[in-house]
Amino acid sequence: MSGQLRPDGSLRHLLTLEDLPRALIERLLERAQSLVRPLGERPPVSRALAGCTVANLFTEPSTRTRVSFELAAKRLGADVVNLEVQLSSRVKGESMLDTVYTLQSLHVDALVIRDAEMGVPGTVAANVAAHVSVLSAGEAHVAHPTQGLLDALTVRQHKPNLEAIAIAIVGDIRHSRVARSALHVFRALGVRDVRIVAPPVLMPEPQEFAGCSRHTSLESGLKDADVVMMLRIQKERMAQAELPDADRYYASYGLTPERLALARPDAIVMHPQPMNRGIEIASAVADGPQSVIRDQVRNGVAVRMAVLSEVLAWRSAA
Amino acid sequence: MSGQLRPDGSLRHLLTLEDLPRALIERLLERAQSLVRPLGERPPVSRALAGCTVANLFTEPSTRTRVSFELAAKRLGADVVNLEVQLSSRVKGESMLDTVYTLQSLHVDALVIRDAEMGVPGTVAANVAAHVSVLSAGEAHVAHPTQGLLDALTVRQHKPNLEAIAIAIVGDIRHSRVARSALHVFRALGVRDVRIVAPPVLMPEPQEFAGCSRHTSLESGLKDADVVMMLRIQKERMAQAELPDADRYYASYGLTPERLALARPDAIVMHPQPMNRGIEIASAVADGPQSVIRDQVRNGVAVRMAVLSEVLAWRSAA
Amino acid sequence: MSGQLRPDGSLRHLLTLEDLPRALIERLLERAQSLVRPLGERPPVSRALAGCTVANLFTEPSTRTRVSFELAAKRLGADVVNLEVQLSSRVKGESMLDTVYTLQSLHVDALVIRDAEMGVPGTVAANVAAHVSVLSAGEAHVAHPTQGLLDALTVRQHKPNLEAIAIAIVGDIRHSRVARSALHVFRALGVRDVRIVAPPVLMPEPQEFAGCSRHTSLESGLKDADVVMMLRIQKERMAQAELPDADRYYASYGLTPERLALARPDAIVMHPQPMNRGIEIASAVADGPQSVIRDQVRNGVAVRMAVLSEVLAWRSAA
Repeated sequence: MSGQLRPDGSLRHLLTLEDLPRALIERLLERAQSLVRPLGERPPVSRALAGCTVANLFTEPSTRTRVSFELAAKRLGADVVNLEVQLSSRVKGESMLDTVYTLQSLHVDALVIRDAEMGVPGTVAANVAAHVSVLSAGEAHVAHPTQGLLDALTVRQHKPNLEAIAIAIVGDIRHSRVARSALHVFRALGVRDVRIVAPPVLMPEPQEFAGCSRHTSLESGLKDADVVMMLRIQKERMAQAELPDADRYYASYGLTPERLALARPDAIVMHPQPMNRGIEIASAVADGPQSVIRDQVRNGVAVRMAVLSEVLAWRSAA
Repeated sequence: MSGQLRPDGSLRHLLTLEDLPRALIERLLERAQSLVRPLGERPPVSRALAGCTVANLFTEPSTRTRVSFELAAKRLGADVVNLEVQLSSRVKGESMLDTVYTLQSLHVDALVIRDAEMGVPGTVAANVAAHVSVLSAGEAHVAHPTQGLLDALTVRQHKPNLEAIAIAIVGDIRHSRVARSALHVFRALGVRDVRIVAPPVLMPEPQEFAGCSRHTSLESGLKDADVVMMLRIQKERMAQAELPDADRYYASYGLTPERLALARPDAIVMHPQPMNRGIEIASAVADGPQSVIRDQVRNGVAVRMAVLSEVLAWRSAA
Repeated sequence: MSGQLRPDGSLRHLLTLEDLPRALIERLLERAQSLVRPLGERPPVSRALAGCTVANLFTEPSTRTRVSFELAAKRLGADVVNLEVQLSSRVKGESMLDTVYTLQSLHVDALVIRDAEMGVPGTVAANVAAHVSVLSAGEAHVAHPTQGLLDALTVRQHKPNLEAIAIAIVGDIRHSRVARSALHVFRALGVRDVRIVAPPVLMPEPQEFAGCSRHTSLESGLKDADVVMMLRIQKERMAQAELPDADRYYASYGLTPERLALARPDAIVMHPQPMNRGIEIASAVADGPQSVIRDQVRNGVAVRMAVLSEVLAWRSAA
């Protein structure tokens, strides 16, 4: 995706991590790291984006990603408006763009967009005025770039030497924007050993995830891994008989303490949430000492603050 | 509508533009004009209304008018709460007023109300305590006063000599609060030539829109017009067979580049949005050089900031 | 309910008023009283909780209690996020707690929870990290502690000598969290004469409301009362034939001016709202000179500001 960067190399839109320069990713992660605080301490707050306006466009109002973006913006002093809209349903008659033009005319500086239809954030980014930034908060199965950044930040906090580690991504790789954005950022940061683990029906097409080893056996994929990234299983796929039922899935692909023991003893366990406990992950693992799942959430606000600061820096300097 | 003004002549409620003194309208438009910034520049922000509370009462949460009011209030430093309520459904047992009394007791200073039932904003205004202001954000087919003000501001930006221009309002005049508020403000500002253009079934009753020329031919109505205000067609009326289908409507009443050429070469094109592209307006016109539709949106925030400042001025001085 | 207090005796969670120390209740009421302003005056605002985050978790978005908590938090300078979630529907697979852990990891300082299922606020409070406070905004039929505090504050404003007064609570006592929290706070403050008035089917179990006199006759319950607290009747109970229809209920248990005359001449009338006018209360009473129903709403914001200040005091001092 071209066009995410300004001529000076700064980030304007964030639609995908694919092909993003490593130096930019490193800068975002370092800024995010500087904004992380232990739980119980106050998060950093500032007025850096006072006078800026961020609009959250989500098809459902109560997602954790919406709240994470909302708090990131507010803690930087920006005004936030939440809209519950399904942009992709407005494609006919170009009214999707009319909604966007309206927000732009209301002096909204950044549009945070989640949409289940592929291409929506990119279409919006291609059409907004020069002073408006578009941030994808999850696009179909394609990309979830702030999730990828928070996953990378979480891994780096525990495994600083990224070139030497093995990461296993486990679950519905085929339909997962989380897996795709993770792969993009891990590649950019020099991770060599990325494994995808899934039942055959959830494996991506052969041309995707190039360079990753493929495992239909969870045991094989976990062997000596440093990082285990579990994905959410859509229960709807079980109802549609694409997948066996929950019990049988858990028997083959659930991350239990016994299976986790196949990974390195200091391996960390991640999950983008919401979790299906007892289906893709055992509660003993999700809440166990190797889990960094709650750290991911905390890192998510820091990453979104870093991204908002980056794309609106020219504005706050103005 | 009496009772919109305080004894000192300042605005307390804004329910309709009908009979509002010209000097007051001029003052609001001048204040709004001072708050307009080009897109890409920061909008003006202040803390003038810090400590004030504005409640938005809309039957649907995601309208552009709600967002416009919300941003206007926030950019003046006010606290904003959004409620999704249909006041008119609460008329029985007087619970509409109980909802209003509750908000008043929570020290809400201004109630912004959109309701599809005629009379709701006026009933609320007649019952609130002396320190509370009511602003209509759209009342049935009757009035949409901030829309009227933003339309007037937009016209004035391009046509300063209002007494000399011809304005054509085109579409579903009969059911349009936008048309009625536009007529009120244009009359107050001395516009002499206002034309209403509609198929017979969408023409208002003969006693309404007095002094306007009536055109069932779009071509006749557009002739040498300086301003063309298009209205939204409710597709539901087509389903109910009150109107021909979309294609036939467009054939007779759609604003195409060819028809626009009948107006003056420097004519501006307006639309309150959302637009039905290809039904009442061609995309080539909506996005063309004569369109000021996005300016209307930008002017809308400025107008709402001016109105909130006016009705809450006594409060911010306190 | 143990565990609401910190080791230093300050309030950490507010789930119920039962067994709360009288000194703490008095402190909260005094602080709330200092925050009460007459209608028309500005409410007090501060930045005491700037940098703190309050999350409202309500199953429905547009309740007056949500708005009251939201304004209380904003007037103290806190950031507020609203989530429409039904935590109790997430009990399976422990996802209720995952939602809570997520908010905690987002550095939310206080969770305001309304849920129709018994035990939800307590379960959350038992599981959150040490720096997070849980405030119940209404739990099943069990407790509504901020309502109890605002009721006590309202009574005290008119009847300073609580030990000498008689309070009649009228209506659906059996299913009422309002009645239970009122009883807890009135007991703590030394009220001796609390009467519950209800038709037999709405009377609580014998072991509940110990020490209260029970009246199935409204006339008998009102006799010489200083305070009359009316409760809302759920019309659904009438549909289910647990209760007679609205007219017959009003004939027996509606608070009319005639019946109110049985209470002391300076008796005050309260109602938690929303009211069913003409079913449990006559409009002439609800809007009459003895009604303090709107005062209750105003006092509610003050009480919630006092509670938020108390539970987050350690945070604002940090």
